[in-house]
Amino acid sequence: MGRWAPDARGRLQRAAMELYGERGFESTTVAEIAERAGLTERTFFRYFADKREVLFWGAEALQEFLVAQVDAAPPERGPIETITAALGSAADAIFEEMRDQSRQRQDVIDANRELQERELIKLASLAASLAEALRRRGVGDIASSLAAEAGIAAFKVAFDHWVHGDGRRTFAAGIRDSMAELGRLAGAPNPAARR
Amino acid sequence: MGRWAPDARGRLQRAAMELYGERGFESTTVAEIAERAGLTERTFFRYFADKREVLFWGAEALQEFLVAQVDAAPPERGPIETITAALGSAADAIFEEMRDQSRQRQDVIDANRELQERELIKLASLAASLAEALRRRGVGDIASSLAAEAGIAAFKVAFDHWVHGDGRRTFAAGIRDSMAELGRLAGAPNPAARR
Repeated sequence: MGRWAPDARGRLQRAAMELYGERGFESTTVAEIAERAGLTERTFFRYFADKREVLFWGAEALQEFLVAQVDAAPPERGPIETITAALGSAADAIFEEMRDQSRQRQDVIDANRELQERELIKLASLAASLAEALRRRGVGDIASSLAAEAGIAAFKVAFDHWVHGDGRRTFAAGIRDSMAELGRLAGAPNPAARR
Repeated sequence: MGRWAPDARGRLQRAAMELYGERGFESTTVAEIAERAGLTERTFFRYFADKREVLFWGAEALQEFLVAQVDAAPPERGPIETITAALGSAADAIFEEMRDQSRQRQDVIDANRELQERELIKLASLAASLAEALRRRGVGDIASSLAAEAGIAAFKVAFDHWVHGDGRRTFAAGIRDSMAELGRLAGAPNPAARR
């Protein structure tokens, strides 16, 4: 009781992910997560507000990290380049060593509509914060929104390929590839305009 | 009782939008909507499953319209151009004459988190359907996802400017502008790559 539990957050998180995978998110209780982690329910609630927060507690830190990257980017860097660099840094610093956990987490979310909705809200909030950070750099209103939304789109597509791929290409490289592909697609001359 | 109510759906929808605007979505009941429309609750439930569906019943028709446009596009048309044309057609055929209603609806959604989540789910489903339609045209997996997500991003940004603008530029023109802007942003040469 009350004794120090080394890496309690990590143990709870691993226990939760195991149970969500084994019996589904809905059927797992906080009591079961705590038991599997060898901790008490009370300790669980010291780290997470509820069993859903085990999946989403990192979103705020990710958003802060990305906004800090955009704020710190060289002033001459364009909006797409700024967003791509920020997402690439997050991929290297946060995600790269957590590929298995990232895939597990995504599988849990994909199986539950309420979790999908929460994930979409988090991504929309992330896009809004990145657009706001671009505006602070003097980027126009529409360009800021578009660059941020395009970044999140590239992030989602690259994430999916990274977690389900063979692991030979890094997540950051996938994000850069996606952005370059989007540039080729969207920047390609419009055949109708040439007629 | 049982007599024919001309334009019952439209009357219920207008009554609901008025009430959502006046007293908020949460505080409005189906009974109040029916009363304002001069119809019965029973008639309401003939058209809508609940008060939320008044805001979202058109989403399925929009998705079908857009997918049909992509399916019918000339085979030589590129993915971004195909998506832009489909969204532009929907803007002209469905949205343009409903600017006031579209703004009212958006105001109601922006004021309620649960409605925002539902709107995001609908847009994510729309992006997935459009990506799937592009894949049927033989467009690659990643390019299909990126083009569809970029289209939805341009649609969202253009929608916001259209409903809050002065009405002189059409929604379809705004979508084309947004896509062109995204092309300039994303297709711009990367300064880092030139060094």
